[in-house]
Order: sequence, then C-alpha cells, then structure tokens
Amino acid sequence: MKKRIAIDMDEVIADFNAKHLRVFNRDYNENFTVNDLQGTRLRELRPHLKNEITAYLNDPAFFRDLDVMRDSQKVIKQLSEQYEIFITTAAMEFPASFTSKYEWLKEQFPFLNEMNFVFCGDKSVIRADYLIDDNSRHFQRFEGQGILFTAPHNVNETGYVRVNNWLEVRNYFL
Amino acid sequence: MKKRIAIDMDEVIADFNAKHLRVFNRDYNENFTVNDLQGTRLRELRPHLKNEITAYLNDPAFFRDLDVMRDSQKVIKQLSEQYEIFITTAAMEFPASFTSKYEWLKEQFPFLNEMNFVFCGDKSVIRADYLIDDNSRHFQRFEGQGILFTAPHNVNETGYVRVNNWLEVRNYFL
Repeated sequence: MKKRIAIDMDEVIADFNAKHLRVFNRDYNENFTVNDLQGTRLRELRPHLKNEITAYLNDPAFFRDLDVMRDSQKVIKQLSEQYEIFITTAAMEFPASFTSKYEWLKEQFPFLNEMNFVFCGDKSVIRADYLIDDNSRHFQRFEGQGILFTAPHNVNETGYVRVNNWLEVRNYFL
Repeated sequence: MKKRIAIDMDEVIADFNAKHLRVFNRDYNENFTVNDLQGTRLRELRPHLKNEITAYLNDPAFFRDLDVMRDSQKVIKQLSEQYEIFITTAAMEFPASFTSKYEWLKEQFPFLNEMNFVFCGDKSVIRADYLIDDNSRHFQRFEGQGILFTAPHNVNETGYVRVNNWLEVRNYFL
C-alpha cells in the first residue's frame, strides 16, 4: 500500500505572504517584504492593526488568486506516482475561504482528486504517514512524521525535520 | 486521553432525505416517502431523472435548512463530555455545500468547536476511534470501529455494527 503524504496549503503550496503583504502595503502605505517577516508575523509587526490584518482573510476572494509555490506542482505530480497525496488545510479558521481554496486547488493541481482535499481545523484528525506543514503546532498530536516547510514565521524553530523548498521535498521522498 | 468519535452529517445528524423528497415530489408531482427508499435510492427509482435528482445538491442553499435528526443534539452534547467529537462529511462531492454545511453546524450544534469540523471526500484520511456513518464504503479503509447508522438505503446491509437512532448511539457509548 502506498504511503500517504498530507500537504498543507498556505505558505506551502500557496504563496500566502506575497498577497497578504501586497494588499496590506497598498492599503497602509507600507513597504514590508518577506524579509521583514523572518521569525515574526505581520500582525506582530503592526499589533494595533491586528484585526485589519486578519480581516483580509475573511474576504472570500482572498485565497482565489494566490501564486503557486515554486516547484510544488511538478514535485507533487512526481510524488503522486509513488505516494497517496492529500491536501489538508485549516480552512475552518476562515470559512469564507472554502470555495476559493477548492477552485484554486482544482486550477493549480488538476491532477489531484478532489476526494483527497481536506478542509479541517485541528489536524490531529488527519491519518497520514507524513504531514508537510509550516505550522509546527499541527505536529504535536499528529501520529506520522511532521515535516516543517520553511516559512518566514518559523525560521527560528528547531527540533523538526525541515525542508526549505519543494526541491528539498523531492530529495526527501524520492 | 479521550477516545474520538467521528460523525457524518447527511442522514446521520442532518435529515437529508426529508428535504430531497420534498423538493423532488414538488417539482415532479410525485408522492415518494422514505418508505419507498428502503434498500434503494431515489435516483434508482427514477433513473431517467438521475441528473436532475443529483442537481438539487449543487444548489448552495440545499443543505442550509435540513432538519436535525431526532435526539442527535442532546446525545452528541452528552457524548462530547466523555469523547472528542469530530464532524466528518464528504462535502467535496458537492463543493457548493461548504458554506451551508458550516453555517448549519454552527447553528444546530453550537457547542461543537468548528476546529473539529472536517470537510473531506475519502474518509480513510480520518483518524478516529469510531466513525458513525450511513455509508458503509467509508469503513473499508477506516482503521477504527465503523458504526453503521441506519438509513433507508442501507437497511439490507449486514456485517456491520448498526445503530438505528441516536438513543441507540447513546446506549452504545454511555
């Protein structure tokens, strides 16, 4: 039986930060780049705008046009030949995102079966051999092997298997 | 650690058939009742209308006002004191249903945490000790104990632990 890899969306296959910074910089006349997010988050850099920063994610369209992370399509296509691939995203945190996330996946990863999409909250409910995610909290109760995908906010975290990009994911699995 | 129970929505906590029959009877001048669905499905009784019968489920509003199954609220509330409850629904089959299903759950089961809602397709990805579901196909690759919740279409299926209503669920677990 094929081993199963569960893969997160935001900051793993979908370039969440690029869009979030773009709309925030536009609306607040700022010039943040991903370099400013190393080891932190936008809402920690501008705590007085925390609600506004989060509110972008309640826009149903926000997640529809995110860029796809470099090499993720070709590597996941290769992985899908030897592994069972599930996309597991904590969409319940932003229910307005459901349709955009679904349509985005169908568009960017047409070779995946939508029966393998999982919109959840607490990822301890996921049964898989591996979980590739940028949020290490999801590994705490996960029974398989957690693999931390480098994102600005997690660069200082240690103690996890880490991959920095999709070519490193390929090297890990293939 | 609490044992975990995963619970399906349609025909388990949400009275799917009542509404489906109501709109179908109205539009096609029929008088089907759930008694007619014993051991079968509406689309098998009217195969020439199969597409139309399924099309109702693509209406985003279809799942918003389903009746809640008798006793499910009070029993799940009781169960939630001793078990970890997740709602696991194959929503990927009808992506238009996402928002309605979410809002319905928040309305009918306000005591559940939305982080424990799972919209999926293939339920083999669910890690739980028990799965209460009316579709036995979900038990094939499920690693916990499948519990078949009686629905008209499954009355002739044997070989599963079966519960006929929510009071029987309570007796099974408490």
